Amino acid sequence: MTTWSVYLSGEIHTDWRDQIRQGAEAHQLPVNFSAPVTDHEASDDCGAFILGAEDKKFWFDHKGAKVNAIRTRTLIEKADIVVVRFGDKYKQWNAAFDAGYAAALGKSLIVLHDPSLTHPLKEVDGAALAVAETSEQVVEILRYVIKGELAR
Amino acid sequence: MTTWSVYLSGEIHTDWRDQIRQGAEAHQLPVNFSAPVTDHEASDDCGAFILGAEDKKFWFDHKGAKVNAIRTRTLIEKADIVVVRFGDKYKQWNAAFDAGYAAALGKSLIVLHDPSLTHPLKEVDGAALAVAETSEQVVEILRYVIKGELAR
Amino acid sequence: MTTWSVYLSGEIHTDWRDQIRQGAEAHQLPVNFSAPVTDHEASDDCGAFILGAEDKKFWFDHKGAKVNAIRTRTLIEKADIVVVRFGDKYKQWNAAFDAGYAAALGKSLIVLHDPSLTHPLKEVDGAALAVAETSEQVVEILRYVIKGELAR
Amino acid sequence: MTTWSVYLSGEIHTDWRDQIRQGAEAHQLPVNFSAPVTDHEASDDCGAFILGAEDKKFWFDHKGAKVNAIRTRTLIEKADIVVVRFGDKYKQWNAAFDAGYAAALGKSLIVLHDPSLTHPLKEVDGAALAVAETSEQVVEILRYVIKGELAR
Amino acid sequence: MTTWSVYLSGEIHTDWRDQIRQGAEAHQLPVNFSAPVTDHEASDDCGAFILGAEDKKFWFDHKGAKVNAIRTRTLIEKADIVVVRFGDKYKQWNAAFDAGYAAALGKSLIVLHDPSLTHPLKEVDGAALAVAETSEQVVEILRYVIKGELAR
Amino acid sequence: MTTWSVYLSGEIHTDWRDQIRQGAEAHQLPVNFSAPVTDHEASDDCGAFILGAEDKKFWFDHKGAKVNAIRTRTLIEKADIVVVRFGDKYKQWNAAFDAGYAAALGKSLIVLHDPSLTHPLKEVDGAALAVAETSEQVVEILRYVIKGELAR
Amino acid sequence: MTTWSVYLSGEIHTDWRDQIRQGAEAHQLPVNFSAPVTDHEASDDCGAFILGAEDKKFWFDHKGAKVNAIRTRTLIEKADIVVVRFGDKYKQWNAAFDAGYAAALGKSLIVLHDPSLTHPLKEVDGAALAVAETSEQVVEILRYVIKGELAR
Amino acid sequence: MTTWSVYLSGEIHTDWRDQIRQGAEAHQLPVNFSAPVTDHEASDDCGAFILGAEDKKFWFDHKGAKVNAIRTRTLIEKADIVVVRFGDKYKQWNAAFDAGYAAALGKSLIVLHDPSLTHPLKEVDGAALAVAETSEQVVEILRYVIKGELAR
Repeated sequence: MTTWSVYLSGEIHTDWRDQIRQGAEAHQLPVNFSAPVTDHEASDDCGAFILGAEDKKFWFDHKGAKVNAIRTRTLIEKADIVVVRFGDKYKQWNAAFDAGYAAALGKSLIVLHDPSLTHPLKEVDGAALAVAETSEQVVEILRYVIKGELAR
Repeated sequence: MTTWSVYLSGEIHTDWRDQIRQGAEAHQLPVNFSAPVTDHEASDDCGAFILGAEDKKFWFDHKGAKVNAIRTRTLIEKADIVVVRFGDKYKQWNAAFDAGYAAALGKSLIVLHDPSLTHPLKEVDGAALAVAETSEQVVEILRYVIKGELAR
Repeated sequence: MTTWSVYLSGEIHTDWRDQIRQGAEAHQLPVNFSAPVTDHEASDDCGAFILGAEDKKFWFDHKGAKVNAIRTRTLIEKADIVVVRFGDKYKQWNAAFDAGYAAALGKSLIVLHDPSLTHPLKEVDGAALAVAETSEQVVEILRYVIKGELAR
Repeated sequence: MTTWSVYLSGEIHTDWRDQIRQGAEAHQLPVNFSAPVTDHEASDDCGAFILGAEDKKFWFDHKGAKVNAIRTRTLIEKADIVVVRFGDKYKQWNAAFDAGYAAALGKSLIVLHDPSLTHPLKEVDGAALAVAETSEQVVEILRYVIKGELAR
Repeated sequence: MTTWSVYLSGEIHTDWRDQIRQGAEAHQLPVNFSAPVTDHEASDDCGAFILGAEDKKFWFDHKGAKVNAIRTRTLIEKADIVVVRFGDKYKQWNAAFDAGYAAALGKSLIVLHDPSLTHPLKEVDGAALAVAETSEQVVEILRYVIKGELAR
Repeated sequence: MTTWSVYLSGEIHTDWRDQIRQGAEAHQLPVNFSAPVTDHEASDDCGAFILGAEDKKFWFDHKGAKVNAIRTRTLIEKADIVVVRFGDKYKQWNAAFDAGYAAALGKSLIVLHDPSLTHPLKEVDGAALAVAETSEQVVEILRYVIKGELAR
Repeated sequence: MTTWSVYLSGEIHTDWRDQIRQGAEAHQLPVNFSAPVTDHEASDDCGAFILGAEDKKFWFDHKGAKVNAIRTRTLIEKADIVVVRFGDKYKQWNAAFDAGYAAALGKSLIVLHDPSLTHPLKEVDGAALAVAETSEQVVEILRYVIKGELAR
Repeated sequence: MTTWSVYLSGEIHTDWRDQIRQGAEAHQLPVNFSAPVTDHEASDDCGAFILGAEDKKFWFDHKGAKVNAIRTRTLIEKADIVVVRFGDKYKQWNAAFDAGYAAALGKSLIVLHDPSLTHPLKEVDGAALAVAETSEQVVEILRYVIKGELAR
């Protein structure tokens, strides 16, 4: 059976990735999950920490964003499915950027968010093959798509 | 020896996929077969069942079609050969859609149908590298193409 | 203002293409429309007529289908938008094939059909950016998309 | 001299597009500008208005988002340069989606925003070839890039 | 009406290109024809003549082949349709190379040759959308494909 | 160490493929070799034998050429390096077609032929990264390219 | 007759671009020439001048390099032929970068340099379809390639 | 965990590749490293040695450059990340060519050089996602990107 590659983009302050990983494991789905670095502080500091400090905040952020891009773009390009989760805090423009990036590459896009975000996310949802509200739904989609099992 | 990926699209009401799988196994062909979900009811209901009910038939179908597309497009893109089977019932526009999708991606296309369907399928057949009438012929093509064996 | 290329695929027995062309003209939309050869008999006979007769129906059809493909694939590849119309007669697998071909190339797909065909066309509709029931709706989409005009 | 295609994505509540258009005109730059439909209400309503009303807000938005996508994706794909403007209101996930879409297609990306947004936009800025704070800077970039003129 | 680009590859010792050009003109077809340099001697000598003499025949030929490739590959890539003519003399491996090159790029391929060459050209013909025996047939294909006219 | 995929196209009447395979084995090169079906008779007959007899030689050949294309195009697309051998007999247009096909896909092309064929093969050689005269040279190229060993 | 697009990359301290432009004009060649900004100082300063000063030399250069890339990458992507000139001064890594960029995009590459640079430029020359020593040779290549004229 | 492919291009006279390999091993990073042949003499001589001597230096170099290209282009195309090192000697145009080639293919580019080279390398650095000064920094980038570990 084909092993599927699934990239989990977006919100990093709740345990939705673990829920999906555990659900996939419970159903023994052949999936390789990948994700951005979810340690917020490391993700912010990596550029300047490794490549040298910066006085200006812009370049501090710029170096970090590009080091992170080495990881995120490579893994999105390797993915069959890209799941993007929007939470209720922060601007999360990087999540929407990833969704656009994945859409332009023709990846299967699943968006995960609360119904309260439907209107501002309509363009992102419009590019998706599924719009879910819970991690459980994402697991059930993966289960159906990969193994053909539909729990009734 | 290279392992070949073969996607079996189209008709889901006869056992043609099993015939091809068994024939390939009998000849020990190194093939990974894949296919859409062939449980008709699950395939119709998956969207609304997982992601929430819909009053309108259009959106009920729409959600299901897109969840299925996560599977079908990914597997067609991974395939070396796409076999599309047309039966004698139903409109089967999804089968013809898959054939067009595979053709545009440059996949090797094999079409499988009764000679009585030759005229309405002429554009699909025109894009194919082989037009077969029986599952046995598809097996023999795979056997010849992969192992170079031609039974005389 | 950009000139848009719109390919009109599918049903050839009603005047839906003329309706769309006239509607676009009435709104002075900068559109180059293209389409398959819509003379049914010429479309069937072109291969054998130009390149030599065939005894077998299969090859007669095959030659014709391929000559038509020179036109249809080139024009679909040049198009920004592909409109595919399904009518209530015939199998119309070539229309679904064109829809799949256009989808795989990333073209903006508009499907035009009667609501009675919603279920068998769900996979085709699922790949579309708009599903219309009338030619007037297609004209209004083009008008909005190209000139930003929304008649209220 | 080559005519350049520049798509102006993002914020629709200030006159930044006009400023850039006027600046380009003042310098006689050979540019075709394009943009999404900037009439907010029309942009929200187009799907349901043209293709039929919807009870559920999700599908109302979904139909509109997809009709708009016919315009936006086509014009982004035709563009040489994509400028994305982020303002100080709203979530603007569609702007970040466009930036990701443009980046994945290899377009030259210019991001335009106030320095106060630097941190949340760092991934978007990291994919850009220029990050500007004012419309005048975008005009000067176009002037330099297209005509080689650098005002000192 | 769309202007079509047609590249005429292969045999350079008969006037088949002129026949096709004249036929297209007689039917007022909107076609831009292109072709390799058909002056055999210039085509052989161009590399060494422009870029400097070579003692070894291999490098003399090599320089010429590459200078010609600047023309031929560019024009094949710009073409909608590639017509490849095989005559009864010489090895004509460059014609078969062009056919393979065009096929891999997804161009519509028309092959033109005498029926006596059917067996050795079967792989080339197998990749073509039309196999013609006369220049008149090629003209009639272009006429049908571009204008939809089928002379009966 | 990366495993390399090498497709061996062209002449089927001498044992050059075995020489290369044995040479690669002697140097323990990590290479997966692939090739067309080299049983000339099977290669000619496969289409009609599997899919049904044909009265016309053209269609007999056509069916066979397309069944072979399922194998050859798939394996060329999977290859890192394509070696094309031209012998002193037959027209070998399929070999030149494969070379053009491989070149357009950006594969590394090695051409193998006697110096007496230099002039008619100049366009094919012009697209190659190496032009060899013996199977031993091809083995030494693979050895150097893959393991960095240059026997002096 | 097709208009050709030719990008002139590399050395900016001699008048080689003018020589080629004048030669092309003298032969009435249908060519659109393009080039980087050749005002060295403007090219260095454009980033910081337009987008704001930088204390660190690295970021000063970085901003300029990216603004220039908006021009150079767009024009290289639009070009049919890329000519890269290496002079006898400076490191000229941007010229070699452009050559690699053009080669990966499959552009026809012409390299122009003194024979004294043959050894260090061997990888760049190896990717080229012509290696010239004088501007006159480049003009003669364009004349031959575009109009088929070979001055003897 | 995904295995990453990293190509190490450029300078061949110091042990920077070993430093990176050892650092990656120390952190147990799942990386397949690849590189050009780093034996300078073999790299210069391989073409003429294997394929036959040449009197002219240009063709001697040309044959070698192309044989090396079989290795380098294949491995760059297989890589997720391309690291390019510039040293303080030689012209190193092949390193800059590789950087341009990798950038056009959309690879994640890391450039490694002394700060004294910042100005002449600004265009190359401008295309990179990270600019490092030491091998240790490259190791730390790989460690962070692949395992998410940031040593503080």
